[in-house]
Amino acid sequence: MTLKISKRGKNISQSEIRSMSIECMRLQGINMAQGVCDLPVPKSVLRGAKLAMDNGYNIYTASEGLPEPRQAIADKLNHFYNLRVSPTEVLISQGATGAFYSTAQALLDEGDEVLLLEPYYGYHAATIVALGCRLNYVRLRPPEWQLTREMLEKALSSRTRAILISTPSNPSGKVFSLKELELLRDVCVEHDLVLFSDEIYEHFIYDDHEHIPPATLPEMRERTVTLSGFSKIFSVTGWRLGYAMAAAHVIEAAAQFNDLVYVCAPAPLQLGIAAGLAELPMEFYTKIADEHQEKRNLFCGVLERIGLKPAVPEGSYYVMADVSRIPGNDDREKAGYILEKTGVASVPGRAFYHDESGRNLVRFCFAKEFDVLEDACQKLERLALF
Amino acid sequence: MTLKISKRGKNISQSEIRSMSIECMRLQGINMAQGVCDLPVPKSVLRGAKLAMDNGYNIYTASEGLPEPRQAIADKLNHFYNLRVSPTEVLISQGATGAFYSTAQALLDEGDEVLLLEPYYGYHAATIVALGCRLNYVRLRPPEWQLTREMLEKALSSRTRAILISTPSNPSGKVFSLKELELLRDVCVEHDLVLFSDEIYEHFIYDDHEHIPPATLPEMRERTVTLSGFSKIFSVTGWRLGYAMAAAHVIEAAAQFNDLVYVCAPAPLQLGIAAGLAELPMEFYTKIADEHQEKRNLFCGVLERIGLKPAVPEGSYYVMADVSRIPGNDDREKAGYILEKTGVASVPGRAFYHDESGRNLVRFCFAKEFDVLEDACQKLERLALF
Repeated sequence: MTLKISKRGKNISQSEIRSMSIECMRLQGINMAQGVCDLPVPKSVLRGAKLAMDNGYNIYTASEGLPEPRQAIADKLNHFYNLRVSPTEVLISQGATGAFYSTAQALLDEGDEVLLLEPYYGYHAATIVALGCRLNYVRLRPPEWQLTREMLEKALSSRTRAILISTPSNPSGKVFSLKELELLRDVCVEHDLVLFSDEIYEHFIYDDHEHIPPATLPEMRERTVTLSGFSKIFSVTGWRLGYAMAAAHVIEAAAQFNDLVYVCAPAPLQLGIAAGLAELPMEFYTKIADEHQEKRNLFCGVLERIGLKPAVPEGSYYVMADVSRIPGNDDREKAGYILEKTGVASVPGRAFYHDESGRNLVRFCFAKEFDVLEDACQKLERLALF
Repeated sequence: MTLKISKRGKNISQSEIRSMSIECMRLQGINMAQGVCDLPVPKSVLRGAKLAMDNGYNIYTASEGLPEPRQAIADKLNHFYNLRVSPTEVLISQGATGAFYSTAQALLDEGDEVLLLEPYYGYHAATIVALGCRLNYVRLRPPEWQLTREMLEKALSSRTRAILISTPSNPSGKVFSLKELELLRDVCVEHDLVLFSDEIYEHFIYDDHEHIPPATLPEMRERTVTLSGFSKIFSVTGWRLGYAMAAAHVIEAAAQFNDLVYVCAPAPLQLGIAAGLAELPMEFYTKIADEHQEKRNLFCGVLERIGLKPAVPEGSYYVMADVSRIPGNDDREKAGYILEKTGVASVPGRAFYHDESGRNLVRFCFAKEFDVLEDACQKLERLALF
């Protein structure tokens, strides 16, 4: 007797990032597939979490989070973006993933359509589908990944309820300009849409680009769900700590789903985050951006040199590279070839497209410690010989 | 402009436990509503988590959990119940809540029917409904909460796919006997059903009752999903650490959903749990059972004395009390009355029934430190005067 897996269980596919990470571990390679930042966790963050454990913050918190970290997140949003957020507009959840899942359930019904900018982050697409919603894709093209009003209009239908973007974008590294955000605003207002804006890479911004949260635009504060978290900036992807910022009544509805699915975010870790937010100076954030810009420059230079033309990112810590010249029938074979020949894991490009468009692309995460990144660069240089 | 909440968002109701906890906090009362164990977290558990943080276990883990805690959980199941579990049969998730959500998605499709033993834990019912499944209820009645084959047969239909029990049960405190489990086994085998068995209170067992995991019964290992966690036994409800034990192919399918919804359980806290499992002696577990039996005796004695007749629990740390004689039109008013007059919060009984049957019941959690429990008892004694 063997239990039958449900239809939904058969239909859910293993994430390509997960598959490549497992394969990379097996080969003891350098994992540039998974979006893990190699930096050490800030001491104040660790200290805050340990202190919280000692002080008894090990039991359930309110589903929307403890008051202190909610306030700290509001303060951060006010400080960085002058948003005048109150803690009642903040939901702390299991990473940005949980914040998205809970707010999406509060706002989307089965059959609703969501415009997803492509290339997209796979978990975004999978979550929308898991909620019984339909996806319509708005294809952006390298190297500028420019968004036009026409592209959006073409993808709209009478059932469209929301637009979902990430800025800086995973996987493209695009940072949406004010002009593009205004265009998104116009469409959202005209068609009465929600904007889900995943800003988890908000502090990874290069050159003279600027991160503009769509919620800062007139008329957008009330129709935007801003998603972010601490996995990337504090290097705690395994802590599962993120948040949504939205109108208080949306946060209240989302908290019910957060309660059902997550109960609450890990209690002592919430306070580690609060300590980090309170104690880390502005230089902490600018230093991380500077360091990653240096890493981007180094890594994109190598990609260019070995003929894997990169779409040089404006933000985030990913880069899409053209693997046309690598042997193999498709992106999966090509990523496999690169891993086998160099020991460097990447994500096959189709993970970020709903069709075959990613067949000649892979995504690398360059947020590795400098020596690991240099090692990866040397190993990748071998591809120049083939 | 105000964003509209989705239909599903309007239909999800705030958990009664959450509402009462919030009201209790407002009144600075004693919260006997929420199932939080007041004991301190074992030192080895805290030490393990802190050490893990220092050793860099702050990044994503495999979705099914780190190898060491998976092994520790398998060892525990083998040690306590002689189950011969391998780590591939263990999924670590965000509490037993996450373990249930992920395995239920792997095994249940929309439209499937699930038999739920009543009174039930509200999150169980809400999760099944959120997955688009139908609930059929099997009503157990105090004081024995006895299950018969006839009750099960009456609730079955051709669409029934699973039975969901908790043993020891929340809220009734019932511990299923071998005879009842055999009866459940017979029905599961005959009708090809899955058994979800929530055993989060497995160590809270009183008198000469014994906790028997249904998976230990012949023919049941392969069709049981055993759910448990560490919230209760290690007093870390806020850590969100639980697990499912099931056939390896079920765990594999569930891991995909776990990945999508949770990514992984909090990494350093997984290792705190592993340390606790490895280091705590058997006396740790027996002492907790003994202490809670003493608390049960004390508290049930008071309930009896003040005329709120308890259904004395065989396990778990809850007790259902008859509040017929308390003023108020229904359970909510009566629980409100008790809170107002005594400062002790309980959960209105209808939270555990699909109909009006809970109107004269409330649930108390007696897992409070002795002095708090004694204080609550004194305060409740005031009700004898009314």
